[in-house]
Amino acid sequence: MLTYNLADTGSDALYTYLYKCIRQDILTGKIRAGQKLPSKRTLAKNLGISVITVEGAYGLLTAEGYVYSLPKKGFYAADPELMPAAGQAVHAGNMVLTGGSRAYLADLTSNQTDTAIFPFSIWTRTMREVMAEDQEALMVNPPCGGIMALRESIAAYLADFRGMSVNPEQVIIGAGTEYLYSLLIQLLGRDRRYGVENPGYHKAARVYEEMGAGTAYIGMDAEGIRIDELEAKAVDVIHVSPSHHFPTGHVTPISRRYELLAWASRGEERYIIEDDYDSELRLGGKTIPTLQSIDASGRVIYMNTFTKTLCSTVRISYMVLPYPLCERFYEKLSFYSCTVSNFEQYTLARFMADGSFEKHINRLRSFYQKKRDSLLTAIRRSPLAKRAEIYEEEAGVHFLMKIRTDREEEAYTAAVRAGGVRLKPLSAYYFREEGSPSETSRDNTYVINYSSVREEVMAAAVQVLYEAAAAGTKSKTKT
Amino acid sequence: MLTYNLADTGSDALYTYLYKCIRQDILTGKIRAGQKLPSKRTLAKNLGISVITVEGAYGLLTAEGYVYSLPKKGFYAADPELMPAAGQAVHAGNMVLTGGSRAYLADLTSNQTDTAIFPFSIWTRTMREVMAEDQEALMVNPPCGGIMALRESIAAYLADFRGMSVNPEQVIIGAGTEYLYSLLIQLLGRDRRYGVENPGYHKAARVYEEMGAGTAYIGMDAEGIRIDELEAKAVDVIHVSPSHHFPTGHVTPISRRYELLAWASRGEERYIIEDDYDSELRLGGKTIPTLQSIDASGRVIYMNTFTKTLCSTVRISYMVLPYPLCERFYEKLSFYSCTVSNFEQYTLARFMADGSFEKHINRLRSFYQKKRDSLLTAIRRSPLAKRAEIYEEEAGVHFLMKIRTDREEEAYTAAVRAGGVRLKPLSAYYFREEGSPSETSRDNTYVINYSSVREEVMAAAVQVLYEAAAAGTKSKTKT
Repeated sequence: MLTYNLADTGSDALYTYLYKCIRQDILTGKIRAGQKLPSKRTLAKNLGISVITVEGAYGLLTAEGYVYSLPKKGFYAADPELMPAAGQAVHAGNMVLTGGSRAYLADLTSNQTDTAIFPFSIWTRTMREVMAEDQEALMVNPPCGGIMALRESIAAYLADFRGMSVNPEQVIIGAGTEYLYSLLIQLLGRDRRYGVENPGYHKAARVYEEMGAGTAYIGMDAEGIRIDELEAKAVDVIHVSPSHHFPTGHVTPISRRYELLAWASRGEERYIIEDDYDSELRLGGKTIPTLQSIDASGRVIYMNTFTKTLCSTVRISYMVLPYPLCERFYEKLSFYSCTVSNFEQYTLARFMADGSFEKHINRLRSFYQKKRDSLLTAIRRSPLAKRAEIYEEEAGVHFLMKIRTDREEEAYTAAVRAGGVRLKPLSAYYFREEGSPSETSRDNTYVINYSSVREEVMAAAVQVLYEAAAAGTKSKTKT
Repeated sequence: MLTYNLADTGSDALYTYLYKCIRQDILTGKIRAGQKLPSKRTLAKNLGISVITVEGAYGLLTAEGYVYSLPKKGFYAADPELMPAAGQAVHAGNMVLTGGSRAYLADLTSNQTDTAIFPFSIWTRTMREVMAEDQEALMVNPPCGGIMALRESIAAYLADFRGMSVNPEQVIIGAGTEYLYSLLIQLLGRDRRYGVENPGYHKAARVYEEMGAGTAYIGMDAEGIRIDELEAKAVDVIHVSPSHHFPTGHVTPISRRYELLAWASRGEERYIIEDDYDSELRLGGKTIPTLQSIDASGRVIYMNTFTKTLCSTVRISYMVLPYPLCERFYEKLSFYSCTVSNFEQYTLARFMADGSFEKHINRLRSFYQKKRDSLLTAIRRSPLAKRAEIYEEEAGVHFLMKIRTDREEEAYTAAVRAGGVRLKPLSAYYFREEGSPSETSRDNTYVINYSSVREEVMAAAVQVLYEAAAAGTKSKTKT
């Protein structure tokens, strides 16, 4: 329950003071994003003040976007990340104590694993076996790159399912790809320039920047990363997702892959980080060899993760280093302890070795296929269908949807959020360099990540998307 | 089994070629440190060559320190890290694929957890409960600093056992202290100078250096870190272990603690990283308040880890940030995902909350006390007693032992290694700056870490230590 000391409000009116208290708690994360606030009546009673005062405070909070209301449900704390107007205030005291939230009707931005799909019983059984049978091994400090059994399983998996020829000692296990990026920067040097795809997964760029390395945003065309921009921006290391670009879903054709390898081989220390983050979940479409498997000059660092295939909260990722880098890694960075617990490494190794992982992937694929089909059906059955175009629905666990509405993206996003649906526009994945035209791509195309959306709410969520789009049919503001 | 293609040995004699092949495999880690080599006869038979040839190769390998022999047991690969002569060669192709080894009779340098002390049954039960009851929570992406339940448990623990007043949002969980150091450098800046204790735990310095931050080695006196050196070397952030210095075991008295806090408060951005790594295991001696608990100006970052108290292969550590840094952390670095798996965070939180952790610590303390007493008894009963002085035996899981022998440290260490005992001299924990007198502290004082030594081998290990010391009674080489 919210309790505030309202004895001394300074020069503020009581409702302004209360507004500030609640705002502070939302910004610092004491009130979590999506958390329900007490009803006006209850809060008034508890604080010993009038309902009018609470109404005033809630009104201010709603007007400024700190709080949103759901009809017939009540008031909810907004996600500070998504507060359009909060700007400086958010950055000043933003202690995001919360993680992904389950409080939305449908969160179309979340990569959280659906509880229904995690193999709890097999995983528990496997872990119990490991705890009973491998006690000696569990206590032995693992090599810096991870336990050999897991690295062997991964090498075998890559051979079977990605046609890659990899030795276990090339595989380096780490607690999430972000951690592996930081190792790579230590390996390759902060004095190099790291390129990322634009649009793209900008967290990689954040890591490169926080680690003190130079970054560059490289434009894409329909075939993938633009080679001319790589040259023009003097990039040394380029981070790409050729199998399935995030978020557009584009697949880089073989010709561009060879061009990329050619680019890398033209410089002494040029490298390609190939992020194959959801290759296991591809629902259809062509399979093209990974860059790693056609790289003859040792310039490709392959990366993948179990956070998509197993669960986002078990942090196990890996990279495959080409041999020259592998030697450099052992020489320079082998003093680091492996960041993943032995318990989970041995469990995963066993889970892979006994065929459970393969079965799980198959189950996962049909689970997400069904989910995608249900969502597409819900859209087809709704009047939204006439206002929506869908692209790249063969891709992993998301597709793109362009929505025809008179609303601007910000207003549309806010309107669906008020209905309990969280949505992120494609334009948010573009990094805009200063001076570049910034509005060109704000065309109401949204990234629809359906991995955590429950089937039973799909129709309701689609209805929210439709109503927000239709409500925008006012006099056009665009020219 | 070792197999080499001996068809083309180039200009080398067959035994030289075989020596090079095996050396290569040891340096690259294909043959792990401590791994037993095949007998001469077996290898000769397998490769279809004469025993004499194998003898020649093994002879060379032993002479150069790549291999050691145990009487009546056979030949074993040495640890590349400990090869005194290998120098450049090791650094060129050193792929250390192995981690800590169980191959020694007694490894007095290892921090590995004894299998006997890990609470397998309670941990397994706790984990099973979590997997059964907390499925929803397990799938929710945790806040960047870790799940709240664990941070609350840690805050409560620190209040109860260290007298510290800490809020859960100040606690940041990470996969090992090394990872937390790297976060701290991103938080405080690479442009600062990080000081470490000399002698001390030099891995911290390695991390600071690989992350591109300036480092300085700060001398110690009997009371702890020297304040005058901090000033002289223009240190901004100092890493200390005042409760129990590693490896000397010194405890910093309250007066020096206040001097340290005063030093920090004299500069705008001076901070103290207080590493309390084994405070739970202290077997006796005085308890002095942590720096964190007497810090009034928000300059102390407290760090601790479960790698000592739970097990070295479950990677869970934490730091407690003072409030101003806490805000900066959430603002700048909250985009990072927590590196520890939810499964283990929830298990540990429950393990702490239901009192199992406290019980475990008590058990651990008497387990190590018993181990220490047994080792001390074994020494007292051996003729080694007359040649050994023991210091700081109240400390965590190690003590210092000065051995009277005519051998130099390197020769003594090699001799005990030949007997299957791994030992590291105190002098190895000193960083020597260029031009400083380098031999002053090579006085045959050794750090005896007994945490992973089994009781049943103690007498034998002590005998090895004695024989190597006594065998050195030749004409003195020292002046």
